[in-house]
Amino acid sequence: MSTEPSDFNVTPRNRLMRYPKRGHYDKATIYPILDEALVCQVGFAIDGHPYVIPTIHARLGDQVLLHGLKGGRLLEHIEAGNTVCVSVTLLDGLVLARTAFNHSMNYRSVVLYGSGAAIEEPAAKLAALERLTEHVAPDRWRDVRPPDAKELKMTTIVAIDIEEATAKIRQGPPGDDGEDLTYPVWAGVVPLPIVPQPPQTDPKQTIAYPVPAYVTPYRRPPRA
Amino acid sequence: MSTEPSDFNVTPRNRLMRYPKRGHYDKATIYPILDEALVCQVGFAIDGHPYVIPTIHARLGDQVLLHGLKGGRLLEHIEAGNTVCVSVTLLDGLVLARTAFNHSMNYRSVVLYGSGAAIEEPAAKLAALERLTEHVAPDRWRDVRPPDAKELKMTTIVAIDIEEATAKIRQGPPGDDGEDLTYPVWAGVVPLPIVPQPPQTDPKQTIAYPVPAYVTPYRRPPRA
Repeated sequence: MSTEPSDFNVTPRNRLMRYPKRGHYDKATIYPILDEALVCQVGFAIDGHPYVIPTIHARLGDQVLLHGLKGGRLLEHIEAGNTVCVSVTLLDGLVLARTAFNHSMNYRSVVLYGSGAAIEEPAAKLAALERLTEHVAPDRWRDVRPPDAKELKMTTIVAIDIEEATAKIRQGPPGDDGEDLTYPVWAGVVPLPIVPQPPQTDPKQTIAYPVPAYVTPYRRPPRA
Repeated sequence: MSTEPSDFNVTPRNRLMRYPKRGHYDKATIYPILDEALVCQVGFAIDGHPYVIPTIHARLGDQVLLHGLKGGRLLEHIEAGNTVCVSVTLLDGLVLARTAFNHSMNYRSVVLYGSGAAIEEPAAKLAALERLTEHVAPDRWRDVRPPDAKELKMTTIVAIDIEEATAKIRQGPPGDDGEDLTYPVWAGVVPLPIVPQPPQTDPKQTIAYPVPAYVTPYRRPPRA
């Protein structure tokens, strides 16, 4: 029996079959990965056919918010009450082992399952859009023109209840062992962080507005 | 009618509905994105239920190779002839607009559909594993201990025929227009490249083997 905390039930759907020691089922592990990721991949099935769409997301409590232009296939599918699978992967580095077999990646990933509904009420929609904007760039929302009625109407927002979730994490040096350790080749890890670069001002900007603190530099995950 | 080249048929499944101008259906656009990405997300449906699994991949001609430990749910599903959806997303930057509505990301993404089969013949399996290793770290394969018979037997490799594919690309400054351009806030782009860091030698390495040229520095995409 695992002594790991488990906030989510471990079911045939979300239980890690391969490398089960890399699996985690607690919110304290899963939610920071969701919160750091800038892109998620949403899988869904229509008439048994699989689809995956990349999009931005934000977590709000035990829900994941998604948004997009009204009428999109994914959002309509969620509005209709169907279950989706949301996957995020943070790639941390390459693991170059002495054996081809032990080559790997260091990563932190989450796969979750849930269903939800559209957020329709205008104030709640605005709050959800604020959360989505703040997920990407904390403090940006207060600086920009908020959505007007037409833009709000063009936008669909859904909230998905996180029903099951799994984090899978691999960190550290290569897993070679035994006599492979003497194989005569360099082995180690190449870290692959996302390194935000200096902001590039929009060429259409004619007045030198100050560059906001949240992009000088931009940090991921954001400052606590 | 689009004058873009189109190597893949544009069907109800792969046609971009939202922002159709961001869509591309030609191999010259799609394949370099697949080749640069280190991680893909594979979507599949079992009994109508959606799953997404992150994994590494490599392209070989008009196929995508995937591998993993024998017996995994995804690979068995592909071996059985089912269609999967493979998604890769390269995040290039944040697009911070003057309006909440125009906030976006710069990215290059591919979604493809296909089905395939396991590669069973040992020499073909070895060649596929070489391709997967070389996708991540060109020239690594010749340096390391190749898979032995037991490792080969533990590994399942599948080749998926790319039947339909779409690239979706957004680059450039914010899309604000009209009177929004005078909204008094800084706007622009924050580039978010992956910047490979100096390699970290495995602490279990007791002899100072030379650090290979392909990690000093590691480059993505690899040098041509």
